[in-house]
Amino acid sequence: MGTLSVRESKTAQLKMSTVGNSTNIFWQESPVGKLERQKLLNQKGCVVWITGLSGSGKSTLACSLSRELYTRGKLSYILDGDNLRHGLNKDLGFKADDRTENIRRVGEVAKLFADAGLICIASLISPYRKDRDACRAMLPDANFVEVFMNMPLELCEARDSKGLYKLARAGKIKGFTGIDDPYEPPLKCEIEIQQKDGDCPTPGAMAGEVVSYLEEKGYLQDH
Amino acid sequence: MGTLSVRESKTAQLKMSTVGNSTNIFWQESPVGKLERQKLLNQKGCVVWITGLSGSGKSTLACSLSRELYTRGKLSYILDGDNLRHGLNKDLGFKADDRTENIRRVGEVAKLFADAGLICIASLISPYRKDRDACRAMLPDANFVEVFMNMPLELCEARDSKGLYKLARAGKIKGFTGIDDPYEPPLKCEIEIQQKDGDCPTPGAMAGEVVSYLEEKGYLQDH
Repeated sequence: MGTLSVRESKTAQLKMSTVGNSTNIFWQESPVGKLERQKLLNQKGCVVWITGLSGSGKSTLACSLSRELYTRGKLSYILDGDNLRHGLNKDLGFKADDRTENIRRVGEVAKLFADAGLICIASLISPYRKDRDACRAMLPDANFVEVFMNMPLELCEARDSKGLYKLARAGKIKGFTGIDDPYEPPLKCEIEIQQKDGDCPTPGAMAGEVVSYLEEKGYLQDH
Repeated sequence: MGTLSVRESKTAQLKMSTVGNSTNIFWQESPVGKLERQKLLNQKGCVVWITGLSGSGKSTLACSLSRELYTRGKLSYILDGDNLRHGLNKDLGFKADDRTENIRRVGEVAKLFADAGLICIASLISPYRKDRDACRAMLPDANFVEVFMNMPLELCEARDSKGLYKLARAGKIKGFTGIDDPYEPPLKCEIEIQQKDGDCPTPGAMAGEVVSYLEEKGYLQDH
């Protein structure tokens, strides 16, 4: 009967545990680690978490940032809250529990992407502080860069590019962040994007701010 | 009051829809696409889905494959069923519904990784045909490579590297695949790993078989 040559070493790496509803599960060590993937990519994996009101420019920044990173030869991937609701999170609604589960799953997936060596750009309203902080806590070594789109509600509502504020004001959407559901701004975040003299920064300027931060912290350097 | 310069073009890209419990959500197009990421990585994103009994060598193949791809300068990432139960899927157990949801989520995440340009190696027992086929259906352009670890139950049980078969036989684990829960082999899959003359292929030989397939289909070629 055949055997696997790595069987003994494999067994040594295994550790049985119980997590939530899952019993008798093992942690399987992968032979290619994060450091090796980062070497291949010439960058350091991390999560850029963009939070803010609907219409505050999260997706605009995410797109502009991924474009800027691409021109520098860096691999990023956008996890867009709305897009994920078409797939991974399509079973979830907008009640508080569902929002929390939505953000938890995005956090877990973002963590996988960072572990894969990518600069993962998560773009979600993520209105509750405790949900964002739970995602931050998932990431080791402070690889969580929180970007707060600090735009006034009036501006976001005036933009209303998706027409959602209008629906929320008319009572056709319930629990809309900023209208009848709270947005809790970060008490402390890595980057805050704001208006200057009443003007919004351009997409390029916003991306530049994040890129500068990533550069400074060594995320874009070769390893 | 400031405006976003890309606002008009953004609006044009948006399409409102209702998906499951999520209403009023939009699909936000990313400016850096899969083709560009593939160009950066010199490879084509896809999902290698390894299915088979516990102890059939899924993790061994996954590790060996990721190592072989790494030596060729290709970026892969392993989604291990057990590992994900520590994070993304820690709310799920092993009942049929939970197994289905477990596999659905792994399929959705694998799809994201393939879209990011990676060779995503999913390693899960995934015993039910309909669950695996649902994951296949998520991937466009046949980027789903199903690898069936076709090892006899007796061999897997004799290995029992995790000691789970013993527990299942003793009735201490219920619904264990191969013992008191069915494994449905693929009717048609891209790759089948089997014993030859009573010997199991080495991890390197198994990985070689998958790499040859990926090479032949153009997944490892520069773009």
